[in-house]
Amino acid sequence: MDIKNRRTIRKYKTDDVSEELLSRLLDEAARAATMGNMQLYSVVVTRDKEMKHRLSPLHFNQPMVMNAPVVLTFCADFHRFTYWCHQRNADAGYDNFLSFINAASDTLLFTQAFTTLAETEGLGTCYLGTTVYQPQGIIDVLGLPRLVFPITTITVGWPDEMPEQTDRLPLAGLLHKEKYHDYVADDIDRIYALKESLPENQHFVAINQKENLAQVFTDCRYTRRDNEFLSTGMLEALKQQGFL
Amino acid sequence: MDIKNRRTIRKYKTDDVSEELLSRLLDEAARAATMGNMQLYSVVVTRDKEMKHRLSPLHFNQPMVMNAPVVLTFCADFHRFTYWCHQRNADAGYDNFLSFINAASDTLLFTQAFTTLAETEGLGTCYLGTTVYQPQGIIDVLGLPRLVFPITTITVGWPDEMPEQTDRLPLAGLLHKEKYHDYVADDIDRIYALKESLPENQHFVAINQKENLAQVFTDCRYTRRDNEFLSTGMLEALKQQGFL
Repeated sequence: MDIKNRRTIRKYKTDDVSEELLSRLLDEAARAATMGNMQLYSVVVTRDKEMKHRLSPLHFNQPMVMNAPVVLTFCADFHRFTYWCHQRNADAGYDNFLSFINAASDTLLFTQAFTTLAETEGLGTCYLGTTVYQPQGIIDVLGLPRLVFPITTITVGWPDEMPEQTDRLPLAGLLHKEKYHDYVADDIDRIYALKESLPENQHFVAINQKENLAQVFTDCRYTRRDNEFLSTGMLEALKQQGFL
Repeated sequence: MDIKNRRTIRKYKTDDVSEELLSRLLDEAARAATMGNMQLYSVVVTRDKEMKHRLSPLHFNQPMVMNAPVVLTFCADFHRFTYWCHQRNADAGYDNFLSFINAASDTLLFTQAFTTLAETEGLGTCYLGTTVYQPQGIIDVLGLPRLVFPITTITVGWPDEMPEQTDRLPLAGLLHKEKYHDYVADDIDRIYALKESLPENQHFVAINQKENLAQVFTDCRYTRRDNEFLSTGMLEALKQQGFL
C-alpha cells in the first residue's frame, strides 16, 4: 500500500477484474469506520456494455466509463436500514438532511478504503466527480429507490498507462494549528506558485486565452453558472429521494 | 496496511504523536484523489488542552477528545481557492451547494487516506460523527471563515486497547449488479441476522427495554426528533458559511 506513489489511472487493459477479487476488496473495504456501524451505503457494479452506454452521457462521456472493465457507483443508502426498521416496528427518522450527510460520509470512507485496497492489488482507479452533477439521471438508470443517492463513481481496471504524478499544494497551506489562520495575499502566492508555474498549466492558460490559471478554473472548468445550475438539480434530486 | 484487521481505537497511551510524523502522514494522504486537483480541504490540528476543553462538549463529551494527544478537524474549504481566484481577478462561483458537496467529498477522501496511513504506522484513530451535529459551535471555536465547514473529526494516538472487531453486514447485502435490486423481507432478515444475534446487541435491547435492536437505533441512538433538529442546525450553518 503506497498512497504516496499513487496516480489516477484513466487507461485500462482489456483484461477483466474478476468477481472474486472485486468481492474480496469490497468486503475488506467495509472494515472502514461507519456511523454507529450502520453501513449506510450500497455499491452498484456495472459491467454490462449497454448499462455503460446509458451511464456514459451522465458522466459527460468521459471515456473511462466505456473502457474500464468495471464501473462502481457508490451510493448513500438509508433505504436498507429504514426497511429493516419498518420490518421491526421501529420509527425510522432518516428522511432528512443530516441523515443524507451521515450516509454520504459513510459512503466516501468506504469508497476511499476500497480505492486504496484496489491500488495495493495493482488495479488502477479513477474517480468521476460527475456523479453528483446529474444525479437524477443516474438514479433513473440504476433504479435507485427513495433514500438512496449516488455519491461517487470509480472506474476500475488493470492499468495501461503510467502517467506522471500530478502536483499537490504544500502541506503548510492546508494545515492550521489550533485555529484556522486566515491567509494573506503572500500566503496565497506561495501556496499556488508551483501549480501556476507548471508548463501544462501555462499551456491551459494559453489555449484558453486567459490571463492566468485561476481564470481557467472559474471561466472554463468550474463556472459559477454551471455550479449554480447543477446545485439546483442536486437539491431537487435530494428532495425527490426523500432527504430534504 | 491492513484495513481488514482494523478496529476503531478510543483509548490512547499518553505518548505524543510527533509533529514530524503527523506532517508526513498528512502530506502522503494528500495524494488521495481530489476534484480537478483543487484540494478543497483544510485540517485544524488540536493539541492544546484548553482548545480540547472547548471542542469536547460539541462532541457530546466523548472522552477521546480530551484523552487523545491529537484531535484533527477536517474541513471542506473553498475559502482558500476562492481567495486565490480573487487575487487573480477570476470570478469564483463556489458559494453554492454543489461546491459544498465537492469540497466535502475531497475532505472525506483525504481523511480516509490519512486514517489508513496512520493505522499502518501503528496509530489508532476514532471518527467523531458528531462533527456535523453542532457545526456552528465548531466553526466558532476553530474560527472557520466563510466557505469553510467542518466535515469530520478524528482523534489520533498510540493504542492503549485492542477491542474486538465489530460486526459487518454480509457483502451480498450491500452489492447490486447492474441495477439496484430492491430488498424483500427475507433479505432484510438475512442481512441483519448476525447483528441482531450478537450478545452485546441483545444486551442493548434489554437495558433499553425495547422490543428489538432496530428500536434501539430509532428510539435511543438516532431518533427522528434529533435528526430533524440537527438537520435544521446544519442547514443554517451551511447558509451562514455561504454554501446555501
